[in-house]
Amino acid sequence: MAYERVGVVVVAAGSSRRMGGLDKLWLPLDGQPLLGRTLTALLAIPEISQTVVALSADGLRRAEDLRSRAEPPWDRVGALVQGGAERADSVQAGLMALDECEFVLIHDGARPLVTPELVRAGLATAREHGAAIPAVPVTDTIKRVDARGFITATPDRAMLRAVQTPQVFRYDLLRHAYETAGRARALCTDDAMLLERLGYAVATFPGDPRNIKVSTPADLPLLKLYLREQEDVR
Amino acid sequence: MAYERVGVVVVAAGSSRRMGGLDKLWLPLDGQPLLGRTLTALLAIPEISQTVVALSADGLRRAEDLRSRAEPPWDRVGALVQGGAERADSVQAGLMALDECEFVLIHDGARPLVTPELVRAGLATAREHGAAIPAVPVTDTIKRVDARGFITATPDRAMLRAVQTPQVFRYDLLRHAYETAGRARALCTDDAMLLERLGYAVATFPGDPRNIKVSTPADLPLLKLYLREQEDVR
Repeated sequence: MAYERVGVVVVAAGSSRRMGGLDKLWLPLDGQPLLGRTLTALLAIPEISQTVVALSADGLRRAEDLRSRAEPPWDRVGALVQGGAERADSVQAGLMALDECEFVLIHDGARPLVTPELVRAGLATAREHGAAIPAVPVTDTIKRVDARGFITATPDRAMLRAVQTPQVFRYDLLRHAYETAGRARALCTDDAMLLERLGYAVATFPGDPRNIKVSTPADLPLLKLYLREQEDVR
Repeated sequence: MAYERVGVVVVAAGSSRRMGGLDKLWLPLDGQPLLGRTLTALLAIPEISQTVVALSADGLRRAEDLRSRAEPPWDRVGALVQGGAERADSVQAGLMALDECEFVLIHDGARPLVTPELVRAGLATAREHGAAIPAVPVTDTIKRVDARGFITATPDRAMLRAVQTPQVFRYDLLRHAYETAGRARALCTDDAMLLERLGYAVATFPGDPRNIKVSTPADLPLLKLYLREQEDVR
Protein backbone atom coordinates (compact mmCIF):
# COMPACT_ATOMS: atom_id res chain seq x y z
CA MET A 1 0.00 0.00 0.00
CA ALA A 2 1.25 3.46 -0.90
CA TYR A 3 2.16 5.92 1.81
CA GLU A 4 -1.04 7.45 3.15
CA ARG A 5 -1.43 10.91 4.64
CA VAL A 6 -3.74 10.97 7.63
CA GLY A 7 -4.74 14.18 9.39
CA VAL A 8 -6.62 14.61 12.64
CA VAL A 9 -8.81 17.50 13.74
CA VAL A 10 -9.16 17.61 17.53
CA VAL A 11 -12.40 19.30 18.58
CA ALA A 12 -11.67 21.26 21.74
CA ALA A 13 -13.77 24.42 21.52
CA GLY A 14 -16.70 23.24 23.67
CA SER A 15 -18.11 25.31 26.48
CA SER A 16 -18.21 22.45 29.05
CA ARG A 17 -21.77 23.41 30.00
CA ARG A 18 -22.26 20.08 31.75
CA MET A 19 -19.11 20.48 33.86
CA GLY A 20 -20.66 23.14 36.10
CA GLY A 21 -18.35 25.95 34.97
CA LEU A 22 -15.12 23.93 35.02
CA ASP A 23 -13.31 23.89 31.69
CA LYS A 24 -12.93 20.13 31.44
CA LEU A 25 -10.29 20.28 28.71
CA TRP A 26 -7.85 22.04 31.04
CA LEU A 27 -8.45 19.91 34.12
CA PRO A 28 -5.08 18.72 35.39
CA LEU A 29 -4.59 14.94 35.39
CA ASP A 30 -1.24 13.99 36.91
CA GLY A 31 0.18 17.36 35.95
CA GLN A 32 -1.06 17.44 32.37
CA PRO A 33 -4.36 18.97 31.23
CA LEU A 34 -6.96 16.55 29.87
CA LEU A 35 -6.54 17.98 26.36
CA GLY A 36 -2.76 17.52 26.58
CA ARG A 37 -3.35 13.87 27.45
CA THR A 38 -5.51 13.45 24.35
CA LEU A 39 -2.86 15.10 22.15
CA THR A 40 -0.08 12.97 23.63
CA ALA A 41 -2.09 9.83 22.80
CA LEU A 42 -2.74 10.96 19.21
CA LEU A 43 0.84 12.13 18.56
CA ALA A 44 2.10 8.67 19.55
CA ILE A 45 0.12 6.99 16.75
CA PRO A 46 2.46 6.58 13.74
CA GLU A 47 -0.36 6.51 11.17
CA ILE A 48 -1.24 10.14 11.95
CA SER A 49 0.84 12.62 9.95
CA GLN A 50 -0.70 15.96 11.01
CA THR A 51 -2.62 17.18 14.06
CA VAL A 52 -4.78 20.32 14.15
CA VAL A 53 -6.60 21.50 17.28
CA ALA A 54 -9.70 23.71 17.19
CA LEU A 55 -10.03 25.67 20.45
CA SER A 56 -12.13 28.36 22.11
CA ALA A 57 -10.64 31.89 22.10
CA ASP A 58 -9.47 31.38 25.67
CA GLY A 59 -8.16 27.88 25.01
CA LEU A 60 -6.29 29.12 21.95
CA ARG A 61 -4.39 31.65 24.08
CA ARG A 62 -3.42 28.98 26.60
CA ALA A 63 -2.37 26.51 23.92
CA GLU A 64 -0.34 29.13 22.01
CA ASP A 65 1.42 30.07 25.20
CA LEU A 66 2.33 26.43 25.91
CA ARG A 67 3.53 25.96 22.35
CA SER A 68 5.64 29.12 22.43
CA ARG A 69 7.39 27.67 25.48
CA ALA A 70 7.99 24.40 23.52
CA GLU A 71 6.05 22.41 26.12
CA PRO A 72 5.34 18.84 25.00
CA PRO A 73 3.02 17.73 23.49
CA TRP A 74 2.10 21.24 22.27
CA ASP A 75 5.40 21.72 20.45
CA ARG A 76 4.48 18.87 18.07
CA VAL A 77 0.98 20.02 17.13
CA GLY A 78 0.64 21.09 13.46
CA ALA A 79 -1.78 23.97 13.90
CA LEU A 80 -3.88 25.64 16.58
CA VAL A 81 -7.05 27.33 15.28
CA GLN A 82 -10.02 29.06 16.80
CA GLY A 83 -13.21 27.00 16.59
CA GLY A 84 -16.78 28.25 16.56
CA ALA A 85 -19.99 28.24 18.54
CA GLU A 86 -21.12 24.89 17.14
CA ARG A 87 -19.13 21.70 16.94
CA ALA A 88 -19.45 21.74 13.14
CA ASP A 89 -17.90 25.24 12.97
CA SER A 90 -14.88 23.94 14.86
CA VAL A 91 -14.50 20.92 12.62
CA GLN A 92 -14.66 23.14 9.54
CA ALA A 93 -12.07 25.54 10.94
CA GLY A 94 -9.83 22.55 11.62
CA LEU A 95 -10.34 21.11 8.13
CA MET A 96 -9.35 24.44 6.57
CA ALA A 97 -6.07 24.41 8.53
CA LEU A 98 -5.22 20.83 7.58
CA ASP A 99 -2.97 20.07 4.60
CA GLU A 100 -4.64 17.95 1.95
CA CYS A 101 -4.56 14.29 2.92
CA GLU A 102 -6.17 10.95 2.10
CA PHE A 103 -8.00 10.43 5.37
CA VAL A 104 -9.06 12.68 8.18
CA LEU A 105 -9.95 11.74 11.74
CA ILE A 106 -12.26 13.94 13.79
CA HIS A 107 -11.61 13.38 17.48
CA ASP A 108 -13.03 14.80 20.73
CA GLY A 109 -10.47 16.65 22.85
CA ALA A 110 -12.11 15.09 25.92
CA ARG A 111 -11.38 11.47 24.88
CA PRO A 112 -7.80 10.84 26.03
CA LEU A 113 -8.12 7.04 25.95
CA VAL A 114 -7.91 6.78 22.15
CA THR A 115 -5.58 3.95 21.10
CA PRO A 116 -3.53 3.07 18.01
CA GLU A 117 -5.71 -0.04 17.60
CA LEU A 118 -8.86 2.07 17.38
CA VAL A 119 -7.31 4.40 14.80
CA ARG A 120 -6.12 1.43 12.71
CA ALA A 121 -9.54 -0.21 12.80
CA GLY A 122 -11.13 3.09 11.73
CA LEU A 123 -8.70 3.58 8.85
CA ALA A 124 -9.29 0.01 7.63
CA THR A 125 -13.06 0.53 7.58
CA ALA A 126 -12.80 3.98 5.99
CA ARG A 127 -10.56 2.60 3.20
CA GLU A 128 -13.38 0.22 2.35
CA HIS A 129 -16.42 2.44 2.87
CA GLY A 130 -15.26 6.08 2.88
CA ALA A 131 -16.77 6.91 6.27
CA ALA A 132 -16.32 4.90 9.46
CA ILE A 133 -17.31 5.61 13.05
CA PRO A 134 -16.55 3.64 16.21
CA ALA A 135 -19.66 2.24 17.86
CA VAL A 136 -20.34 0.19 20.98
CA PRO A 137 -23.49 -1.72 21.98
CA VAL A 138 -25.98 0.16 24.14
CA THR A 139 -26.30 -1.58 27.49
CA ASP A 140 -29.14 0.50 28.95
CA THR A 141 -32.72 0.34 27.76
CA ILE A 142 -33.23 3.56 25.79
CA LYS A 143 -36.61 5.31 25.64
CA ARG A 144 -37.84 8.17 23.58
CA VAL A 145 -39.74 10.76 25.67
CA ASP A 146 -41.93 13.78 24.92
CA ALA A 147 -41.33 17.28 26.26
CA ARG A 148 -43.20 16.40 29.50
CA GLY A 149 -41.07 13.30 30.15
CA PHE A 150 -43.68 10.70 29.19
CA ILE A 151 -42.41 7.77 27.20
CA THR A 152 -43.35 7.76 23.53
CA ALA A 153 -41.36 4.75 22.28
CA THR A 154 -38.85 2.03 23.21
CA PRO A 155 -36.52 1.62 20.19
CA ASP A 156 -35.14 -1.90 19.68
CA ARG A 157 -31.88 -1.87 21.64
CA ALA A 158 -30.26 -4.50 19.40
CA MET A 159 -30.25 -1.96 16.55
CA LEU A 160 -28.86 0.95 18.60
CA ARG A 161 -25.21 1.88 19.02
CA ALA A 162 -23.47 4.53 21.12
CA VAL A 163 -20.91 6.21 18.91
CA GLN A 164 -17.51 7.61 19.80
CA THR A 165 -14.63 9.32 18.08
CA PRO A 166 -12.27 9.17 16.19
CA GLN A 167 -14.69 9.28 13.28
CA VAL A 168 -12.67 8.52 10.14
CA PHE A 169 -13.43 9.86 6.65
CA ARG A 170 -11.96 10.06 3.21
CA TYR A 171 -10.69 13.63 3.23
CA ASP A 172 -12.38 14.63 -0.06
CA LEU A 173 -15.71 13.19 1.14
CA LEU A 174 -15.74 15.19 4.39
CA ARG A 175 -14.54 18.39 2.69
CA HIS A 176 -17.32 18.00 0.13
CA ALA A 177 -19.89 17.37 2.87
CA TYR A 178 -18.87 20.52 4.76
CA GLU A 179 -18.85 22.61 1.59
CA THR A 180 -22.35 21.56 0.54
CA ALA A 181 -24.08 21.19 3.91
CA GLY A 182 -24.75 24.89 4.50
CA ARG A 183 -26.93 25.60 7.48
CA ALA A 184 -27.85 21.91 7.97
CA ARG A 185 -24.43 21.68 9.68
CA ALA A 186 -25.75 23.23 12.86
CA LEU A 187 -28.29 20.42 13.25
CA CYS A 188 -25.63 17.72 13.26
CA THR A 189 -24.29 16.46 16.58
CA ASP A 190 -21.51 14.55 14.86
CA ASP A 191 -19.78 14.42 11.48
CA ALA A 192 -21.28 11.12 10.45
CA MET A 193 -24.71 12.78 10.63
CA LEU A 194 -23.65 15.35 8.04
CA LEU A 195 -22.81 12.56 5.59
CA GLU A 196 -25.98 10.66 6.48
CA ARG A 197 -28.05 13.72 5.60
CA LEU A 198 -26.31 13.95 2.24
CA GLY A 199 -27.18 10.32 1.55
CA TYR A 200 -23.72 8.77 1.97
CA ALA A 201 -23.37 5.32 3.53
CA VAL A 202 -21.58 5.51 6.89
CA ALA A 203 -20.15 2.29 8.29
CA THR A 204 -19.46 1.46 11.93
CA PHE A 205 -16.49 -0.40 13.41
CA PRO A 206 -16.16 -1.72 16.97
CA GLY A 207 -15.40 1.08 19.40
CA ASP A 208 -13.61 0.65 22.72
CA PRO A 209 -15.85 0.75 25.83
CA ARG A 210 -12.98 2.47 27.69
CA ASN A 211 -12.73 5.28 25.14
CA ILE A 212 -15.03 7.48 27.22
CA LYS A 213 -15.63 11.20 26.80
CA VAL A 214 -15.45 13.43 29.86
CA SER A 215 -18.81 15.24 29.88
CA THR A 216 -19.62 15.71 33.57
CA PRO A 217 -17.57 15.69 36.80
CA ALA A 218 -19.05 12.21 37.45
CA ASP A 219 -16.93 10.88 34.55
CA LEU A 220 -13.60 11.82 36.14
CA PRO A 221 -13.16 8.92 38.61
CA LEU A 222 -13.69 6.39 35.82
CA LEU A 223 -11.35 8.27 33.49
CA LYS A 224 -8.60 8.28 36.12
CA LEU A 225 -9.11 4.58 36.74
CA TYR A 226 -8.82 3.76 33.02
CA LEU A 227 -5.79 6.02 32.57
CA ARG A 228 -4.04 4.25 35.46
CA GLU A 229 -4.85 0.83 34.01
CA GLN A 230 -3.64 1.92 30.56
CA GLU A 231 -0.33 3.03 32.08
CA ASP A 232 0.05 -0.23 34.00
CA VAL A 233 -0.24 -2.20 30.75
CA ARG A 234 2.38 -0.14 28.89
CA MET B 1 -51.45 10.12 53.78
CA ALA B 2 -52.68 6.68 54.73
CA TYR B 3 -50.21 3.91 55.36
CA GLU B 4 -49.09 2.54 52.00
CA ARG B 5 -47.96 -0.99 51.29
CA VAL B 6 -45.04 -1.11 48.90
CA GLY B 7 -43.63 -4.38 47.58
CA VAL B 8 -40.47 -4.94 45.57
CA VAL B 9 -39.68 -7.72 43.11
CA VAL B 10 -35.93 -8.14 42.64
CA VAL B 11 -35.11 -9.64 39.25
CA ALA B 12 -32.14 -11.96 39.73
CA ALA B 13 -32.70 -14.89 37.39
CA GLY B 14 -30.52 -13.66 34.52
CA SER B 15 -27.93 -15.87 32.86
CA SER B 16 -25.11 -13.26 32.93
CA ARG B 17 -24.34 -13.99 29.28
CA ARG B 18 -22.28 -10.80 29.00
CA MET B 19 -20.14 -11.67 32.05
CA GLY B 20 -18.19 -14.40 30.24
CA GLY B 21 -19.56 -17.27 32.32
CA LEU B 22 -19.25 -15.55 35.70
CA ASP B 23 -22.54 -15.36 37.59
CA LYS B 24 -22.41 -11.65 38.29
CA LEU B 25 -25.09 -11.75 40.98
CA TRP B 26 -22.89 -13.92 43.19
CA LEU B 27 -19.63 -12.05 42.70
CA PRO B 28 -18.18 -11.30 46.13
CA LEU B 29 -17.81 -7.60 46.95
CA ASP B 30 -16.16 -7.08 50.33
CA GLY B 31 -17.40 -10.48 51.48
CA GLN B 32 -21.00 -10.09 50.33
CA PRO B 33 -22.33 -11.22 46.93
CA LEU B 34 -23.51 -8.46 44.59
CA LEU B 35 -27.13 -9.57 44.99
CA GLY B 36 -26.80 -9.48 48.79
CA ARG B 37 -25.58 -5.89 48.47
CA THR B 38 -28.67 -4.98 46.46
CA LEU B 39 -30.97 -6.64 49.01
CA THR B 40 -29.25 -4.93 51.92
CA ALA B 41 -29.81 -1.55 50.22
CA LEU B 42 -33.51 -2.26 49.57
CA LEU B 43 -34.19 -3.68 53.05
CA ALA B 44 -32.84 -0.46 54.59
CA ILE B 45 -35.50 1.66 52.84
CA PRO B 46 -38.41 2.13 55.27
CA GLU B 47 -41.02 2.69 52.54
CA ILE B 48 -40.60 -0.91 51.34
CA SER B 49 -42.79 -3.38 53.24
CA GLN B 50 -42.09 -6.65 51.39
CA THR B 51 -39.22 -7.98 49.29
CA VAL B 52 -39.48 -10.89 46.87
CA VAL B 53 -36.51 -12.21 44.88
CA ALA B 54 -36.88 -14.13 41.59
CA LEU B 55 -33.82 -16.35 41.02
CA SER B 56 -32.46 -18.99 38.67
CA ALA B 57 -32.78 -22.61 39.84
CA ASP B 58 -29.16 -22.56 40.95
CA GLY B 59 -29.45 -19.13 42.58
CA LEU B 60 -32.57 -20.25 44.43
CA ARG B 61 -30.67 -23.12 46.04
CA ARG B 62 -27.88 -20.80 47.16
CA ALA B 63 -30.30 -18.19 48.50
CA GLU B 64 -32.41 -20.77 50.35
CA ASP B 65 -29.28 -22.18 51.95
CA LEU B 66 -28.20 -18.71 53.13
CA ARG B 67 -31.67 -17.99 54.48
CA SER B 68 -31.86 -21.35 56.30
CA ARG B 69 -28.65 -20.33 58.10
CA ALA B 70 -30.27 -16.96 59.02
CA GLU B 71 -27.56 -15.05 57.18
CA PRO B 72 -28.32 -11.35 56.79
CA PRO B 73 -29.79 -9.91 54.62
CA TRP B 74 -31.35 -13.19 53.41
CA ASP B 75 -33.13 -13.78 56.72
CA ARG B 76 -35.24 -10.67 56.12
CA VAL B 77 -36.38 -11.40 52.55
CA GLY B 78 -40.12 -12.08 52.23
CA ALA B 79 -40.02 -14.77 49.55
CA LEU B 80 -37.56 -16.49 47.25
CA VAL B 81 -39.06 -17.77 44.00
CA GLN B 82 -37.78 -19.37 40.84
CA GLY B 83 -37.83 -17.03 37.86
CA GLY B 84 -38.06 -17.97 34.19
CA ALA B 85 -36.14 -17.86 30.96
CA GLU B 86 -37.23 -14.30 30.14
CA ARG B 87 -37.11 -11.29 32.39
CA ALA B 88 -40.89 -10.95 32.17
CA ASP B 89 -41.36 -14.52 33.43
CA SER B 90 -39.30 -13.69 36.50
CA VAL B 91 -41.24 -10.50 37.19
CA GLN B 92 -44.53 -12.39 36.91
CA ALA B 93 -43.31 -15.15 39.26
CA GLY B 94 -42.31 -12.45 41.73
CA LEU B 95 -45.64 -10.63 41.43
CA MET B 96 -47.50 -13.89 42.18
CA ALA B 97 -45.51 -14.33 45.39
CA LEU B 98 -46.07 -10.75 46.57
CA ASP B 99 -48.92 -9.92 48.95
CA GLU B 100 -51.40 -7.44 47.54
CA CYS B 101 -50.07 -3.90 47.92
CA GLU B 102 -50.60 -0.37 46.63
CA PHE B 103 -47.33 0.02 44.75
CA VAL B 104 -44.77 -2.39 43.41
CA LEU B 105 -41.14 -1.71 42.52
CA ILE B 106 -39.37 -3.88 39.98
CA HIS B 107 -35.62 -3.73 40.57
CA ASP B 108 -32.56 -5.32 38.95
CA GLY B 109 -30.58 -7.58 41.28
CA ALA B 110 -27.40 -6.18 39.69
CA ARG B 111 -28.07 -2.55 40.75
CA PRO B 112 -26.79 -2.34 44.35
CA LEU B 113 -26.51 1.46 44.36
CA VAL B 114 -30.27 2.05 44.69
CA THR B 115 -30.99 4.76 47.29
CA PRO B 116 -33.94 5.74 49.49
CA GLU B 117 -34.09 9.06 47.60
CA LEU B 118 -34.58 7.26 44.30
CA VAL B 119 -37.35 5.05 45.70
CA ARG B 120 -39.11 8.07 47.20
CA ALA B 121 -38.95 9.99 43.93
CA GLY B 122 -40.36 6.97 42.10
CA LEU B 123 -43.22 6.54 44.54
CA ALA B 124 -44.11 10.24 44.31
CA THR B 125 -44.28 10.06 40.50
CA ALA B 126 -46.19 6.75 40.52
CA ARG B 127 -48.77 8.18 42.94
CA GLU B 128 -49.47 10.86 40.36
CA HIS B 129 -49.23 8.89 37.11
CA GLY B 130 -49.53 5.17 37.96
CA ALA B 131 -46.27 4.18 36.29
CA ALA B 132 -42.88 5.84 36.83
CA ILE B 133 -39.42 4.90 35.68
CA PRO B 134 -36.05 6.49 36.52
CA ALA B 135 -34.34 8.00 33.49
CA VAL B 136 -31.06 9.81 32.90
CA PRO B 137 -29.96 11.89 29.90
CA VAL B 138 -28.06 10.06 27.20
CA THR B 139 -24.56 11.52 26.91
CA ASP B 140 -23.37 9.59 23.85
CA THR B 141 -24.63 10.18 20.34
CA ILE B 142 -26.90 7.22 19.61
CA LYS B 143 -27.27 5.80 16.10
CA ARG B 144 -29.62 3.25 14.65
CA VAL B 145 -27.82 0.69 12.48
CA ASP B 146 -28.87 -2.04 10.05
CA ALA B 147 -27.83 -5.69 10.31
CA ARG B 148 -24.57 -4.91 8.42
CA GLY B 149 -23.61 -2.09 10.79
CA PHE B 150 -24.38 0.81 8.45
CA ILE B 151 -26.08 3.78 10.04
CA THR B 152 -29.76 4.20 9.22
CA ALA B 153 -30.68 7.12 11.51
CA THR B 154 -29.46 9.48 14.23
CA PRO B 155 -32.37 9.94 16.67
CA ASP B 156 -32.53 13.35 18.38
CA ARG B 157 -30.50 12.84 21.57
CA ALA B 158 -32.43 15.50 23.49
CA MET B 159 -35.50 13.25 23.36
CA LEU B 160 -33.70 10.05 24.43
CA ARG B 161 -33.28 8.74 27.97
CA ALA B 162 -31.40 5.78 29.41
CA VAL B 163 -33.70 4.06 31.88
CA GLN B 164 -32.89 2.30 35.12
CA THR B 165 -34.69 0.51 37.90
CA PRO B 166 -36.52 0.62 40.31
CA GLN B 167 -39.47 1.00 37.96
CA VAL B 168 -42.49 1.88 40.14
CA PHE B 169 -46.10 0.93 39.35
CA ARG B 170 -49.52 0.92 40.91
CA TYR B 171 -49.81 -2.74 41.84
CA ASP B 172 -53.19 -3.27 40.17
CA LEU B 173 -51.94 -1.67 36.94
CA LEU B 174 -48.89 -3.94 36.65
CA ARG B 175 -50.88 -7.08 37.61
CA HIS B 176 -53.43 -6.20 34.94
CA ALA B 177 -50.69 -5.61 32.36
CA TYR B 178 -49.09 -8.98 33.05
CA GLU B 179 -52.44 -10.78 32.99
CA THR B 180 -53.45 -9.33 29.61
CA ALA B 181 -50.10 -9.13 27.83
CA GLY B 182 -49.87 -12.79 26.82
CA ARG B 183 -47.00 -13.56 24.50
CA ALA B 184 -46.19 -9.86 23.91
CA ARG B 185 -44.41 -10.11 27.30
CA ALA B 186 -41.43 -11.84 25.77
CA LEU B 187 -40.81 -8.86 23.46
CA CYS B 188 -40.50 -6.41 26.34
CA THR B 189 -37.06 -5.58 27.69
CA ASP B 190 -38.54 -3.78 30.68
CA ASP B 191 -41.84 -3.48 32.51
CA ALA B 192 -42.59 0.02 31.33
CA MET B 193 -42.63 -1.34 27.76
CA LEU B 194 -45.43 -3.74 28.66
CA LEU B 195 -47.58 -0.83 29.80
CA GLU B 196 -46.59 1.26 26.80
CA ARG B 197 -47.78 -1.51 24.48
CA LEU B 198 -51.11 -1.60 26.29
CA GLY B 199 -51.47 2.16 25.75
CA TYR B 200 -50.86 3.34 29.33
CA ALA B 201 -48.97 6.59 29.93
CA VAL B 202 -45.61 5.94 31.61
CA ALA B 203 -43.89 8.88 33.29
CA THR B 204 -40.18 9.30 33.93
CA PHE B 205 -38.45 10.75 37.01
CA PRO B 206 -34.78 11.70 37.36
CA GLY B 207 -32.60 8.61 37.79
CA ASP B 208 -29.24 8.58 39.53
CA PRO B 209 -26.19 8.40 37.20
CA ARG B 210 -24.45 6.27 39.85
CA ASN B 211 -27.24 3.69 39.93
CA ILE B 212 -25.42 1.51 37.39
CA LYS B 213 -26.21 -2.08 36.49
CA VAL B 214 -23.39 -4.59 36.39
CA SER B 215 -23.59 -6.09 32.89
CA THR B 216 -19.99 -6.84 31.94
CA PRO B 217 -16.72 -7.30 33.89
CA ALA B 218 -15.78 -3.78 32.70
CA ASP B 219 -18.49 -2.38 35.00
CA LEU B 220 -16.93 -3.76 38.19
CA PRO B 221 -14.20 -1.16 38.82
CA LEU B 222 -16.73 1.67 38.59
CA LEU B 223 -19.19 -0.18 40.82
CA LYS B 224 -16.52 -0.71 43.49
CA LEU B 225 -15.55 2.95 43.30
CA TYR B 226 -19.17 4.09 43.75
CA LEU B 227 -19.79 1.62 46.59
CA ARG B 228 -16.70 2.94 48.40
CA GLU B 229 -17.84 6.53 47.95
CA GLN B 230 -21.35 5.68 49.15
CA GLU B 231 -19.89 4.12 52.30
CA ASP B 232 -17.66 7.12 52.93
CA VAL B 233 -20.71 9.40 52.92
CA ARG B 234 -22.71 7.24 55.34
